[in-house]
Amino acid sequence: MGLRACLRRIDARDRDVRGWAYLDRTATGGEGPLAGLVLAVKDVIDVAGMPTTHGSPIYADAIASRDAAAVALLRGAGAVVLGKAVTAEFATYHPGPTANPRNLAFTPGGSSSGSAALVADGQADLALGTQTAGSVIRPASFCGTFGFKPTFGRYPLDGVLTTSRSLDTLGLFARSLDILIAADAVLSGEGTSPPAEAPLSIGLCPSPAWPAASEEMRGAFTAFAERLTEAGHAMTFRTLPEPFERLGDAQALIHRREAGIELGAIRRDHADQVSPAFIAMIDAGLAESEDDYQAALALQQECKALAGDVFAGVDLLLAPGAPGAAPPGHAATGDPVFQRIWTALGVPCLGFPAAWRDDGLPLGLQLIAPAGTDRQLLANAATIIALAAPREN
Amino acid sequence: MGLRACLRRIDARDRDVRGWAYLDRTATGGEGPLAGLVLAVKDVIDVAGMPTTHGSPIYADAIASRDAAAVALLRGAGAVVLGKAVTAEFATYHPGPTANPRNLAFTPGGSSSGSAALVADGQADLALGTQTAGSVIRPASFCGTFGFKPTFGRYPLDGVLTTSRSLDTLGLFARSLDILIAADAVLSGEGTSPPAEAPLSIGLCPSPAWPAASEEMRGAFTAFAERLTEAGHAMTFRTLPEPFERLGDAQALIHRREAGIELGAIRRDHADQVSPAFIAMIDAGLAESEDDYQAALALQQECKALAGDVFAGVDLLLAPGAPGAAPPGHAATGDPVFQRIWTALGVPCLGFPAAWRDDGLPLGLQLIAPAGTDRQLLANAATIIALAAPREN
Repeated sequence: MGLRACLRRIDARDRDVRGWAYLDRTATGGEGPLAGLVLAVKDVIDVAGMPTTHGSPIYADAIASRDAAAVALLRGAGAVVLGKAVTAEFATYHPGPTANPRNLAFTPGGSSSGSAALVADGQADLALGTQTAGSVIRPASFCGTFGFKPTFGRYPLDGVLTTSRSLDTLGLFARSLDILIAADAVLSGEGTSPPAEAPLSIGLCPSPAWPAASEEMRGAFTAFAERLTEAGHAMTFRTLPEPFERLGDAQALIHRREAGIELGAIRRDHADQVSPAFIAMIDAGLAESEDDYQAALALQQECKALAGDVFAGVDLLLAPGAPGAAPPGHAATGDPVFQRIWTALGVPCLGFPAAWRDDGLPLGLQLIAPAGTDRQLLANAATIIALAAPREN
Repeated sequence: MGLRACLRRIDARDRDVRGWAYLDRTATGGEGPLAGLVLAVKDVIDVAGMPTTHGSPIYADAIASRDAAAVALLRGAGAVVLGKAVTAEFATYHPGPTANPRNLAFTPGGSSSGSAALVADGQADLALGTQTAGSVIRPASFCGTFGFKPTFGRYPLDGVLTTSRSLDTLGLFARSLDILIAADAVLSGEGTSPPAEAPLSIGLCPSPAWPAASEEMRGAFTAFAERLTEAGHAMTFRTLPEPFERLGDAQALIHRREAGIELGAIRRDHADQVSPAFIAMIDAGLAESEDDYQAALALQQECKALAGDVFAGVDLLLAPGAPGAAPPGHAATGDPVFQRIWTALGVPCLGFPAAWRDDGLPLGLQLIAPAGTDRQLLANAATIIALAAPREN
């Protein structure tokens, strides 16, 4: 859409959506493959000359002196770095002021709340977010935009808040798959891939979190699988090996333990300026034993070693993107239960809106592929996403 | 020694050693277990209000707006954050101006050059450094001070330059083992451990890098093993399983590949302000294939899975800390070949000076223990280090 259209949309909508933590209306772009595209940067990622607040009043005035590596890459490719997008406190769970742009009475999800909301609302073409539990694919699912969590380690993390070194993954939101593919090429330094020969081989993977899925999410998942079948793709049903049943809990343990290490000083030094939810998570993390932590890391490795079996014979997996549509209210950001195992596994996930409710909210699904096959996943996604229900409004 | 003594030493020696990148003579300390101790912070780690230059002219004026998590923990425990210590460029290989304080004609090692030199020279009590290949234990060995690279993930990395997320490890230098133990307790949030019952069971581990050791290093290693035997410790000889023969190369591949991801934007945007060595490393890293990178990560995991065998029946391993004494000159920082495998393995290593040459230079060894047993390693070290030759001057 470009800078002018985004600024107009901001004028019309920022008061309601509240997705920007900081805005530089004088920002301009450069030459390159992303020329003219407007970028919003999650406020746990440094942009030179702008504050990095981490969604906390403690760092309201903390101006970054240089760009995070990913911001430097995108800026160098021509993107307009328009500002910072609201994050949940320290990329965990206590929400900022952002509302769901599809229906303001609902949460946009988190912790990349502003990134998802701004792109979904047309206030930015592209946004950077992070996923440690479910912070890219969940808000993408709730807000109805494309969200991409790449293979662990694919994009640089220098200049990004560290919350969990075994899990932190930089990700993207974009208003189109083409923009996502272009931004991935810049951040990864790789080119793009041609799509696989259609029909694709797709594994339906309800995942161990299936019991948490709402009736309407189950319906959207099943209906989309039927559309894929009708379109001639080869569909199989894919259950996960037993250790994956425990991987979600292991991810949560690794997350809170490592967050305790990284963010413990903030909890200690600023206890009166952080949320009770933050204190509870950090304290729980610091209370985990070394043995339990090592066991969780070992389970993560065990599941990574089983990933070859999980993806054997399929191009990609299809899974729910969240338990359902966005929950009502703004006090919480929803449940990352449908992301935890994939984040722990470090595999690329692409979230997209597959169906829409009458109240404007989307139901998001995700495509999942083996580690390191990000380009192929993005190339294959177009064929599949063309079958998603269009938004009616 | 405390602030006043350090400042006096700085007045006398800074012109020669050149270990400080930034100095705040007005700094003061607080209450706590580290009260009165003077801390130097490697200049890839943020200290609020001081520049973080990463050893590069590109960021000469990049003032950090908040403390790295580790700095906040040490400051909160009372340490005087006196300034920033010279680092090799972006914590890789191109050296800064620091000289070896034991003999100014020699390199202090790197990349934590200033951290090691300042503590060895009495200009700081304690310093933060980082090790991705060999950047803590190597300079500790060359400068003759205690250096500690803890278990991977033990200390927080938030606010530290990311160069390689699979390897980056925050570490410590200290003028005494007691200070090291106190600082470890603050950074880890764990208490201290009582030493194991003496005599200890010690595995002599020349490591696959042994052919790179100089005659005098071989002599120092063998002589120290004899002293341990005479002191009644149970000595065994420990060779490493075959995959460890390839682990050093795998570490180097992971390092340059991940550095390419993290630092590629700097290489691209500021090619005229970085060293040829930096460009060569980043370009080599970006040229590595995804398959080779995944194979290196898989070998790292394979070796981690074999670590139980490596440490079976011993309290710790003894290995050389470097190929020899510090090499002459200041154009390079020496070879990390004796650190690579232990960094890749993520196990705690404690470097200490075991012998001294007539020209003032030390010969350093290292004690190595299983992952997660950092407190026990530090507790056991006192018994062993008491057998090191005192420095004569």
